[in-house]
Amino acid sequence: MLSLPANDPARRSWLESANDAATDFPLQNLPYGAFRTEADAGARIGVAIGDRILDLRAAAQAGLLPAGVAPACQSSVLNALMALGAPAWSTLRQRLSELLGADSCPAVAMRTRVEACLVPLRAATMLLPAAVGDYTDFYASSFHATNVGAMFRPGPPLLPNYKWVPVGYHGRSSSLVVSGTPVRRPCGQILPADATVPVVGPTQNLDYELELGAFVGSGNQHGESIPLAQAAGQLFGVVLLNDWSARDIQSWEYQPLGPFLAKNFATTISPWVITLEALAPFRVPAFPRPATDPAPLPYLSDPGNAALGGLDLTLEVWLLTPRMRAAGAAPHRLSSGNFQKMYWTLAQLLTHHASNGCNLRPGDLLGSGTVSGETKDSRGCLLELTWRGAEPLTLPNGEARRFLHDGDEVILRGHAERPGARRIGLGECRGIVLPAAT
Amino acid sequence: MLSLPANDPARRSWLESANDAATDFPLQNLPYGAFRTEADAGARIGVAIGDRILDLRAAAQAGLLPAGVAPACQSSVLNALMALGAPAWSTLRQRLSELLGADSCPAVAMRTRVEACLVPLRAATMLLPAAVGDYTDFYASSFHATNVGAMFRPGPPLLPNYKWVPVGYHGRSSSLVVSGTPVRRPCGQILPADATVPVVGPTQNLDYELELGAFVGSGNQHGESIPLAQAAGQLFGVVLLNDWSARDIQSWEYQPLGPFLAKNFATTISPWVITLEALAPFRVPAFPRPATDPAPLPYLSDPGNAALGGLDLTLEVWLLTPRMRAAGAAPHRLSSGNFQKMYWTLAQLLTHHASNGCNLRPGDLLGSGTVSGETKDSRGCLLELTWRGAEPLTLPNGEARRFLHDGDEVILRGHAERPGARRIGLGECRGIVLPAAT
Repeated sequence: MLSLPANDPARRSWLESANDAATDFPLQNLPYGAFRTEADAGARIGVAIGDRILDLRAAAQAGLLPAGVAPACQSSVLNALMALGAPAWSTLRQRLSELLGADSCPAVAMRTRVEACLVPLRAATMLLPAAVGDYTDFYASSFHATNVGAMFRPGPPLLPNYKWVPVGYHGRSSSLVVSGTPVRRPCGQILPADATVPVVGPTQNLDYELELGAFVGSGNQHGESIPLAQAAGQLFGVVLLNDWSARDIQSWEYQPLGPFLAKNFATTISPWVITLEALAPFRVPAFPRPATDPAPLPYLSDPGNAALGGLDLTLEVWLLTPRMRAAGAAPHRLSSGNFQKMYWTLAQLLTHHASNGCNLRPGDLLGSGTVSGETKDSRGCLLELTWRGAEPLTLPNGEARRFLHDGDEVILRGHAERPGARRIGLGECRGIVLPAAT
Repeated sequence: MLSLPANDPARRSWLESANDAATDFPLQNLPYGAFRTEADAGARIGVAIGDRILDLRAAAQAGLLPAGVAPACQSSVLNALMALGAPAWSTLRQRLSELLGADSCPAVAMRTRVEACLVPLRAATMLLPAAVGDYTDFYASSFHATNVGAMFRPGPPLLPNYKWVPVGYHGRSSSLVVSGTPVRRPCGQILPADATVPVVGPTQNLDYELELGAFVGSGNQHGESIPLAQAAGQLFGVVLLNDWSARDIQSWEYQPLGPFLAKNFATTISPWVITLEALAPFRVPAFPRPATDPAPLPYLSDPGNAALGGLDLTLEVWLLTPRMRAAGAAPHRLSSGNFQKMYWTLAQLLTHHASNGCNLRPGDLLGSGTVSGETKDSRGCLLELTWRGAEPLTLPNGEARRFLHDGDEVILRGHAERPGARRIGLGECRGIVLPAAT
């Protein structure tokens, strides 16, 4: 087989569905996920290509994969592959691109061997792609932080540390779920307006947060740090992430130690991990800091965006209400933003996290924080879109929303598209709201 | 063998070291841990008895343990045993008490079989007792919260939510280490006094926090809660926990989302998990709330302390400095407090945590927060003892401490002692401070 550039936009797959202009998963993407099927209930990992999954366990067992990565490809989750590090990821990506490329794999006999490892996407039940040891959530959009600060605190909306510290906190690993898992409306303590005594009941202010999640690769030893120049090589790939939030529970509980029950009832991620290599054509300079802002401290400084810079990813939120569903209507887009507007880059988040010697392990997950831009239509949560409920949204069918209702389905979508590159998608991150437990 | 009450203070072991008045591990304790030895590098779990460990893998393989628990006893960590639930824990404890009791196991032949499974404690390298999926840290001492609030914020030291909400936040699982693991002084962003621009460097305010850690048993399903009446049955046991803290990093980073790099560089726990059953004789009424405080909300209300109440545990902090070590001096006790002074009980922490449907898994760890009492000599961290460094401690050899120096070793100890019960100990939680990485 010929070895050809995996990101070359001119290349096509011999699998026709991968060449569809609308597919999220062309030959240039090759994202990883974990799945099972009715025919084979064993969890295994695979690569999305068009409307198929290449079963990596089957491919490894068929001798189609390089020896150095074949054992990790037979795991039920991606952690072992993540632990191998960037050179191994590159080797595997190159091989997969060869196997699936029309130009690089012309032989019918070889195509037949690969086809034997393909599973229809619609036959697969997707699982969490990795066993997440620790999940950390950041707050990396200054537009989001400014809006939230203005709503919740008097005085300057951004606290003095914001432009120096990539602010983050630890989230909950146990309640991470994969797209499609229903999310039960949580109960908790809520302080009614003008009251001094809290009540306990279902949240009335259930919200989503549009985020990007990034998976850690081989990680660092406890006590060591990760220089910014090495950060990109430590990022395996990204997913869409919905940081479900109960705003009324949050505003009562969060001081002084941060969000807890307002967030840890569920966090949903999309099943397909888009690798940093697939995102290479969409690397852009980091969002320029206002001239009055301080430069990042040296350990977070990325001159020329050599370490990573920003990522030009369009990220959208769509809503499907029960009335829309009953009427057969399509989901309605609530917002569209771009990840390149983040104040802190993924590389800065990772390097800051490990700067005190905190050890990051393969499969650990970093959430970016809500992705919001400067414009109202790019605000990544209802809290911002409705300004804490004061300005309800009106949907095309006349329904209004301050926060989420039972039966509402939130759908996050994302894609990358630039001149000279093949468009790739992130797939979807879906979740429907179930009524609170009685 | 006779079946006799495992907590009966009159009972003795045929293993003489377990009858020593000074041992932490008499027949009435039987704490669980994980270990390996030079002779056998395989990690396995065991029970401490006097100066020995009963190797549970060996005991299970020798047919000494009940069939229902024997598979879990052959694991390398306690999670499988924790997952079995309280009735199984009781069955195993009863059996271990029988095997090791002088009265219940009089036959030389049986004692010989048990002896074949004993390992000297000093020959063992202790490991983390469980694989901790999620580690949560609370803030359950009102005395600690009041002191910290007074130091860091103007106005009333306790925030309005404190007496309603058992405040907690998620900590870091990856950097949990077992007693004896050295802890490297972390670097981070620090805002010097009167400055507006932070510097990066080793923390100058390294502190310990004396806490109790509680391990979750079989846990709850995602979306379900744990009623307070079931909380005690969900707690497997407790350890000593040192929540190392960098106060200067903390004060700059912690708003608005809570502590992060100031805490996640390391958390140390003691190796032996003291079960709730062993602690039964030390259950006491929860610390009385001041008459002006609100009663706990119904889901946190424990009338008659039926759910759990408090625990009468003496918890101490000892310090050994390099100069003391060089002089052959013994560690110096910095403080002594009691866990029964906590504002929120362990059962309340667990029930609150799951009240929104957050799923707790076997082996998840809950930290109590710093255990401080009303008196100065019971303050559980240097921040409080030296009032943020303003009132340095003087050690017996004339040395002064505001915060920890390199080479300082912090030793947490704990024990339970009440009339009518055999004294049991929690062992030690030790950690020595290494210089910052260069």
